Amino acid sequence: MTTNTRARLIALDWGTTRCRAYLMGDEGSVLAELHSALGSMVVSTRADASGTPVVQMFEQTFTDVCGEWLAEFPGIPVIACGMVGSNHGWAEAAYRTVPADLSAPGPGLTRVRTSEGVAVDIIPGLISKVGLPDVIRGEETQVLGALAAAVRATDAPEEQVVVLPGTHSKWVRVVGTIVTGFTTCMTGELYALLTEDSTLSLLAARADQPDWEAFDKGLDVASSAAGSGGLLCTAFSARTLVMTGALAPGQVEDYVSGLLIGHELAGIGASWLAGYSGEVLLCGSTQLAERYRRALVARGFKVNLASPEAAAVGMWHSALAAGMVQERHADAGATTSMTSTERSQQC
Amino acid sequence: MTTNTRARLIALDWGTTRCRAYLMGDEGSVLAELHSALGSMVVSTRADASGTPVVQMFEQTFTDVCGEWLAEFPGIPVIACGMVGSNHGWAEAAYRTVPADLSAPGPGLTRVRTSEGVAVDIIPGLISKVGLPDVIRGEETQVLGALAAAVRATDAPEEQVVVLPGTHSKWVRVVGTIVTGFTTCMTGELYALLTEDSTLSLLAARADQPDWEAFDKGLDVASSAAGSGGLLCTAFSARTLVMTGALAPGQVEDYVSGLLIGHELAGIGASWLAGYSGEVLLCGSTQLAERYRRALVARGFKVNLASPEAAAVGMWHSALAAGMVQERHADAGATTSMTSTERSQQC
Repeated sequence: MTTNTRARLIALDWGTTRCRAYLMGDEGSVLAELHSALGSMVVSTRADASGTPVVQMFEQTFTDVCGEWLAEFPGIPVIACGMVGSNHGWAEAAYRTVPADLSAPGPGLTRVRTSEGVAVDIIPGLISKVGLPDVIRGEETQVLGALAAAVRATDAPEEQVVVLPGTHSKWVRVVGTIVTGFTTCMTGELYALLTEDSTLSLLAARADQPDWEAFDKGLDVASSAAGSGGLLCTAFSARTLVMTGALAPGQVEDYVSGLLIGHELAGIGASWLAGYSGEVLLCGSTQLAERYRRALVARGFKVNLASPEAAAVGMWHSALAAGMVQERHADAGATTSMTSTERSQQC
Repeated sequence: MTTNTRARLIALDWGTTRCRAYLMGDEGSVLAELHSALGSMVVSTRADASGTPVVQMFEQTFTDVCGEWLAEFPGIPVIACGMVGSNHGWAEAAYRTVPADLSAPGPGLTRVRTSEGVAVDIIPGLISKVGLPDVIRGEETQVLGALAAAVRATDAPEEQVVVLPGTHSKWVRVVGTIVTGFTTCMTGELYALLTEDSTLSLLAARADQPDWEAFDKGLDVASSAAGSGGLLCTAFSARTLVMTGALAPGQVEDYVSGLLIGHELAGIGASWLAGYSGEVLLCGSTQLAERYRRALVARGFKVNLASPEAAAVGMWHSALAAGMVQERHADAGATTSMTSTERSQQC
């Protein structure tokens, strides 16, 4: 094991399709990191298939992933966020209703305890009941991490918008660390359906590298007069542009990607984000996030990039707020406990 | 065989998933009708699987379906429309570019001939090259049939809008019988993807009967302030409304249906149909058409219903225009050759 001995917290970003475990030290530094494909859906499916109780299967998976850390640092607190806290997870952590202050989740933590006596505290998701109901689970912790620089800000908190691309992208409004509202777009899932299972996939060929020209073409169509009709009215163009030779088969997927993200941004801009002219804080370090950055910039937004370890940072701050860990200043001259990865990067 | 002996034409509405064959008599009356599940996709797939040339497989299928009629009425002309004329069909009937007069398709017919010497004339589809390219194949003939009453109108032709619901719904603008433009919405295909393969399907239960309350709720959401963000921003509500108890699992599919058709109409109304205040001629006799009727009426449109046999009627008029059949007036007192089913019904 390559970690030092100042480990303070195990933090689990345990979503539907994967589990990322962080061993964290003073001031929220990441000492070690483990990635597992054993997302909550895999775990609950395995439990069903083997007739094992779900709780037992989650405990076993947790022990498999974090066993060495638990042995090396007995009594270390453990915090988790994501679908591990859903009704198909380890234990259901009831949603908090927005507006909700992310920096004070204490009463909402849901505790499970393994047969070995290790306590795991699960951070609750959020529910919005204004207009169409909406829920997030896991992303709220990423938002807290992304906002880490603002947590200790002494200025009056300003409204900010955070976007978290993914299978379901999440748009979150915050004032300081208080989430005032959010909305979900099924853009990533529709991309997969359209490029893998629809008639649009019939004329498509997979490409190794992103074709930004095709992506931008999709963005342009979504912003055009024809695009004002929305996705249902433009999607067929991914077929007809190939038929007429204006798009190569290898460009279809990136064109659809640009079209969908363009429609998402146009739709959000016309409804949920209407009237907002501030910056957008973009969470994520994947190629998908780069697509959103490109699309946001094309629509005139100033984009800030959040830490790629926002979930870990958010869990650290949640653990701090819940009294599971204490702030320590290894360097007496430090005036902030932010790690370098917490600072948002201007793009 | 129950037909009389005045058969004048065999008309094939041969689409991707089915083939409908009509034996037509004087004045375009339907004497007999055969339905087959041997759509063009099935035929070409069978050809591939068996190593039979595609042309031969289409010929064999045609003979299987229409053999008795061909034997009883030697030399009867045969006309066809739909995907049988695509590049995966019997023979490719090149698209005509709009604006195109549906009542004068003559030069565009593509002839194939069976080994027995039977000629089959395939009606070309249409291509629109203004803005995003778009194509239709088969629907143009339904439009001609739906407009049959207008074919002989002596008044100055007015602009009309025809909608043809389906896996891909088609919206067609015509002046008289001249198609001036059209657009395709992938609404039906997205409905299938969302209700069968997406995360929305996980909380859904199949219902035996349409739940019009749920359908109308979907329409309402698409028309609401939240709906102005488009489908990507509202689709997730089909999940969250179930989670919060506002929608029953058995209502999800009809809610999604209403949401999608509502978004289609809102999108079309904001783009392709912007400024149009006339009536909409609705083609189709399925439950899907009833959904469109309901949605159009909810948006304030006056809706006319086209003949349920619009394709057959359209092929009759195409055959007339091409000189394949002649008009006959069985009743000297008749002043129109419309059959009763050609008359559009007010709803």
